[in-house]
Parts: sequence; C-alpha cells; structure tokens
Amino acid sequence: MNIALLTIGDELLNGDLADTNTQTIARILTENGLTPREAGTIGDDEALIVTTLQRLAAAHKAVIVTGGLGPTEDDRTAKAAARAFGRPLSLNDQALQQIRNRFRTMRREMHPANEKQAMLPARSHVIPNPNGTAPGFSLQSDKAELFFLPGVPGEMQAMLEESVLPRLLECFPDRPDLCRRSLTVFGLPEPEVEGRLGAALLPDTVAVAFNVDFPMVRIKLQARGDHSQRHIDRAELQIRKALGDHIVAIDEETLAGNTARFLRRAGLTLALAESCTGGLIAKLLTDQAGASAFLERSVVTYANSAKTACLQVPVQLLEQHGAVSAETALAMAKGVRITAGTDIGLAVTGIAGPDGGTPEKPVGTVLIAMSDATGERVAPYHFPGNREQVRQRTACTALDWLRLTAMSRLGSSDRKD
Amino acid sequence: MNIALLTIGDELLNGDLADTNTQTIARILTENGLTPREAGTIGDDEALIVTTLQRLAAAHKAVIVTGGLGPTEDDRTAKAAARAFGRPLSLNDQALQQIRNRFRTMRREMHPANEKQAMLPARSHVIPNPNGTAPGFSLQSDKAELFFLPGVPGEMQAMLEESVLPRLLECFPDRPDLCRRSLTVFGLPEPEVEGRLGAALLPDTVAVAFNVDFPMVRIKLQARGDHSQRHIDRAELQIRKALGDHIVAIDEETLAGNTARFLRRAGLTLALAESCTGGLIAKLLTDQAGASAFLERSVVTYANSAKTACLQVPVQLLEQHGAVSAETALAMAKGVRITAGTDIGLAVTGIAGPDGGTPEKPVGTVLIAMSDATGERVAPYHFPGNREQVRQRTACTALDWLRLTAMSRLGSSDRKD
Repeated sequence: MNIALLTIGDELLNGDLADTNTQTIARILTENGLTPREAGTIGDDEALIVTTLQRLAAAHKAVIVTGGLGPTEDDRTAKAAARAFGRPLSLNDQALQQIRNRFRTMRREMHPANEKQAMLPARSHVIPNPNGTAPGFSLQSDKAELFFLPGVPGEMQAMLEESVLPRLLECFPDRPDLCRRSLTVFGLPEPEVEGRLGAALLPDTVAVAFNVDFPMVRIKLQARGDHSQRHIDRAELQIRKALGDHIVAIDEETLAGNTARFLRRAGLTLALAESCTGGLIAKLLTDQAGASAFLERSVVTYANSAKTACLQVPVQLLEQHGAVSAETALAMAKGVRITAGTDIGLAVTGIAGPDGGTPEKPVGTVLIAMSDATGERVAPYHFPGNREQVRQRTACTALDWLRLTAMSRLGSSDRKD
Repeated sequence: MNIALLTIGDELLNGDLADTNTQTIARILTENGLTPREAGTIGDDEALIVTTLQRLAAAHKAVIVTGGLGPTEDDRTAKAAARAFGRPLSLNDQALQQIRNRFRTMRREMHPANEKQAMLPARSHVIPNPNGTAPGFSLQSDKAELFFLPGVPGEMQAMLEESVLPRLLECFPDRPDLCRRSLTVFGLPEPEVEGRLGAALLPDTVAVAFNVDFPMVRIKLQARGDHSQRHIDRAELQIRKALGDHIVAIDEETLAGNTARFLRRAGLTLALAESCTGGLIAKLLTDQAGASAFLERSVVTYANSAKTACLQVPVQLLEQHGAVSAETALAMAKGVRITAGTDIGLAVTGIAGPDGGTPEKPVGTVLIAMSDATGERVAPYHFPGNREQVRQRTACTALDWLRLTAMSRLGSSDRKD
C-alpha cells in the first residue's frame, strides 16, 4: 500500500535504542491488508524532519510518524510538521485539556513543560492518547494524510489501533483479502522444523516463513484471495501432523499463557520451587492475570538453607548429592507439593552460569522434577548458551512439562476456549 | 556524519522480522565517531530500490545497504544497484571463487542458484564474507561510496567491522573525539528531570538528551573534541547534585545489578516475599550471577494460605485487613525475615490488575514493606498504568528501597568498584 512510516529520534541512529515501532506498525497494518511501502528513521534534526516529511507526503497517500512529541527541547516533530506544511504552531485547546486530564487522573502536578505538548500545527486533528501525556495529531497535506504519534511503544500502539487504523481502513477500501497465522514451536531446532515441514503436504497457496524468537521457532503462514482462511486451516492441520505437541501457541498466545490456561481449566493447583531460574517461571505464569486460581506459591530457594527450611530437603541429601542433582530436584518438587498442599509440585535446579560449572556439571546442567499424586519424574538437561539463554530454556521447558500435564488431564475437546 | 543506512526485505515491512541491523550498524559507527544521518527500509521492489539508492547516493558521502543478496529470485539488490548507476550486471570471478570456496569449506554441494550471487554490477569491489555464501560489494557513484552487505546479522556485522569500517575511517578523517555517558534515573518523571537539569549548571560543551525506558528516564550526555571526557565528568557531577540518589545506574549498569552489588558489598542478606510481582523482583536480582551471596529465598505467596504457611502472617490479620494492606505487607516482611533468618525482609502486595480493583483499593494500589534489625517501614503507592507497568514500577521501587538501604550501610567510598 502507498503508506510510509517514519520514526524520529537521535537515540535510534546512535545505537542507544532499537526501533521496535516500525515492526509493530508494520505487523498491525499488514494484518489489516495495509503493508507499508517504505520506512525511515531520522534524528531530532528539524531541517531534516521538514524535508523528509515533505518528500514522504509527496510520494504516499498516508504517512505515520512516531517520536519527537515529548515535552523536552529535543522533541521537534510538531514544530517541523508545522514548517513542512506552512502552518503556524498554535496552542491546541483540546490537546491541552487532554494533557491536564491525564495529570489529574494520575494525581500528579502538571509540569509547565508539558504545555509544549499542546502546541500543534494549525488545523490539526488531535489523536487521543489513553496511556500517556503526549497527544498525537493528524493533518492533511496536498496529497497525503499524516499521522503523528508518540514514540513510547505502549502509547503509540493504542493510538494506532484506536484512531489511526480505522481512518486508514476508510482511506484504503481496496485491500487484498489476506489471512495470516503464526504457530509457535518449542523443543525443536529450526532446521528440524523446516525439514519436517518440507516433507509435509502444504497447500501451494500458503506461503511459509520461519523465524527464531529464542527459544521458540515461529512458523508464519500467509495466504491471499478467496478461501485464504480455509487454505491456512488446511496448512495448520498438516503442520500439526508433522510437529504434534511441539506447537505450543497460535498467533498472540504464549507458552506461559497457555500453560496457565490449561492448568486453570484442568482445575490443577501448583507450587513451584525455583533455584537457577530465580523466579522467572513464576514471573511468566503471573504475567497475565488469573494465576491466583492455580498458583499457591513459588519458592525461590537460592540458598541450601532455604531448600531445607521451605522445601524439607534433608541436609544430608544436599551434602551427599549436591544442590544440582536429580535427588535434590525430586526432593524439592515433592517438598514444595507437600508443604503447599497442591496437586503438582515442580522444581528446577541447575547451573545458569557464567560461573559455578565443573567438569562433571558444566554450565547449562539443569534438573527438572515434578511430583503429583500419581508419582514423580525428573530429567537432566544440558542447555547451551549464556546465562540468560539457559534460564529461558529452563523456564520454557518447565512450563512445557506443566502444559503437557494439564493437557493430558483434559479431554481434547476441553482444550479449546 | 553524512552516512545513510538502507535495509532491504519484504519481511521487514510486513511485521515478520524486526530490523536489528540498523541499530547494530548505528552503534558500531557511533562508537567510531560516525553516527549516520538517516536510515531507511524498503521491500524487495526493484524499481523502488533503484530510486532509493539514487536518492541516498546523491545526498550522502557513504551509503550502507543490507539485504537482498541471497540466491533466490526475490533478492534483487545487485540488479537494482546495476540499474541505479548504469552499469551492466556481470559475473564477478572473484565473487564466484569465494562462493565456491565457502561451499567447499562447508563440504556441501554448491546449488546452481548460488551462482547468481556472483552477478555484480561492473567495476564493483568484492567484500569478503567470512560467515556465509553471499559476497558483499562496494561501488563508487558520482558523489558517494556504496557498500552492499547481506542481511543475515552475523554475516553483516563481521563484514562491516572487517571491511567497511576501515574504509569509512579513511573516508571521514575528521571525526570528532567523542565521549558519551548515560545516567539512569528512577523515581522522577521526565519533565521533572529536565526541569532540575535546566536549573543545573551544565557545561555548554555537553549535549544532553533524554529518553524514557519505562519506568526509567535515561539522560544521555555527549561531548566532542578536546577534553570531552573532563566535560562529561563535570556534567555528571552537576547532574548528581541536581538529582542525587535518583541516579540509579551509569552506562551499562542496571538498577537490579547495582542493588545486588551494594547488598553483596554491604554483607546484607535478603529474603523476599512477593505477591503482585509474582517473582519479578527475584528474577531481576538473579539476572546476573552472584545473587546466591545475599538472596536466601524469595517466596511468591499468591494465595493467602501461602502467606500464612510460608510467612507466618496470622489468618486473623488477613481476614481483618485484607491481603492488600499495610498490616499484611508488614507481617509478610517480618515473617519472611524471621523464617529465613536474614538481615532484611522485603515484601510487596498489591493489585496489578486488570481485575481485582475496588473503589477503596483501585488497580495500582501497592504496599511495600521492609523489616530489618533496626525496625520496619511500610509505604502505600498508587501506580498508574497497565498490569505490566504496575508490576515493573513495583519491582523497581522495591529494588530501589534495597539499593538505598545497602548504600546507607556503606561509606560513600565503598560504593565504587
């Protein structure tokens, strides 16, 4: 589509900050059949903003600009937009009122510098910002409609979805019928995923792309035209035959979110004992609301004393086998389940690095154990990668154990919402 | 500097892939005093690649292009470069030899499609690719030197550092002697930070920029030329006078990392009781190695039963005041300190949302409590924002309490490494 994106900010060109807005906007627009034609990034250089806005507005039907709407002196987007299209900058009452309301809601004093955020080019339309102080605005040039949004991702995205997207859908009525789906795969390396899919019979009409979002592999499916939905459904079915339970999430779902959903639906209660993950598993399970329905407690037992006191792991066992051992992992899982009185106890212990490895137990050695009424199991892992990667792989593997356990309790028809 | 970056690929404009190359190149160039002036992204559209290359080459002294050098039909960068600068595309023997050698090293059969990767514009110079099959190339237009690199980040970066950067350093001999520093501020809104700095006497030679990295504000200092280091030092001193303990980290440091470092140095041991943060505080404190020296345990007590069992919070107190109350927060902090036998017990309880709020205790209501040998304290907060933001603010505020507590135990000379 004849749409351009422009992100503004010195921090995007000196390596300080990654521009995530371009991808977010591109994804949301593409999902609506409005893939942009080009994207650009420039610094807080007023003259360059002016000429770039003029160039993009002359060549496109819509231009979405993010960044440079803050209260500080180096935020120059509104001023440059005024110059680019020959309009005076003036105090916009509606914008000012929104900034004041925002501060009132936050019960904070409005700083005089925030008034600058209401200085907009004449004949702009204010775009409300439900999540921040900086109002956005839109204006019409000779050929293009331009939308100006703040650079803060959470503010930008809400404004894009609530205000800009509906307007773009009006401006571009002839959109291709596009259907996309994303399958998240855990526990298989990318070449293995590609190999298995190469042997699967996927419809020719569905384009398949892969990308790695550590430690997950994402399969992106896309089809256009009539029956695209049906073709995507058929492709998903074939991929499920090839990859089975390694598909842990669809589209916006996450492994942790689905694990939480299945545990809740299965009516299972959980207690966690985390060592090397240091709270990461509990953090992921509580990222979305509703974990109180199943998560009784999580105990981060970094010290051996905590393993003994909180989880009833015998001192002798710790001394004999060490904290990173199958025996300790099992004792932790059982201990946390019994002390918490839950259906499931899950424990992880390991060496995330960079220090603490030995020849017998190198960095990346991890034990995961689970205990429930039917019995207990423990498995050793050797995860490659740095500390962050070992922790991520450990947490995701533990979540996947819980997901599969909860799924096995549910009939397949119960797994759907 | 008069340098432009251009990334090419449909996947960058439909939301499938984040462009990380722009930030990587920008960072490496900036570290060498060569901050680029603008960056752009376009799809695999030959006509648009041609006009964009011509536009960038007319306005800049150097242009770095990544992507579109692969063996498949939709890789069109070399063909477009040939058209843009009126040169025939021809088989480059040196490039072909490199591709052949690469396949020989990998012990793989060379696919005929890979020969296409040796078709380069006439009078190009080959840029060796130590990590992949696609050779890069450079060519000189009337005004600019253009460098073409593959889009795969690991291949791109090696070629940039080994071949492109040395050439750019020759092209731009007059680079400023650049010194940069970043100060991370917590607990003050951005306008307040700027207001206080406006009143501070900062050297004119130091450029100051702000950016919000929720929930932190980062102050970026930059100075060029002789004595830039000394000017930055003086600016930091003045900023410290204006913002005091709100400066929580310098450059690559983090709030959690410094909190961990100060606790360790002060010889203080810690036990955490987390409710609404669900393990986030422990996760942040254990992101870097070494937390076992001070963190005895962290208990995520999502359920009231866990608050009673793990933290000895009396059932009666929970019933009388509720889980989100100053009384419960204090009892949790004291309970976890006593049961863990640590110097400090820190507890958080609150309503992260989106559900669970009441008129008296709306979403964002958070209590933080701390207990140590000298006494105990508790404070109520009302944090704005969504679930993720409330959790982040709560965790950072709790970490900041710990940081200040540890710092107060250390003499000021002990705080430095």
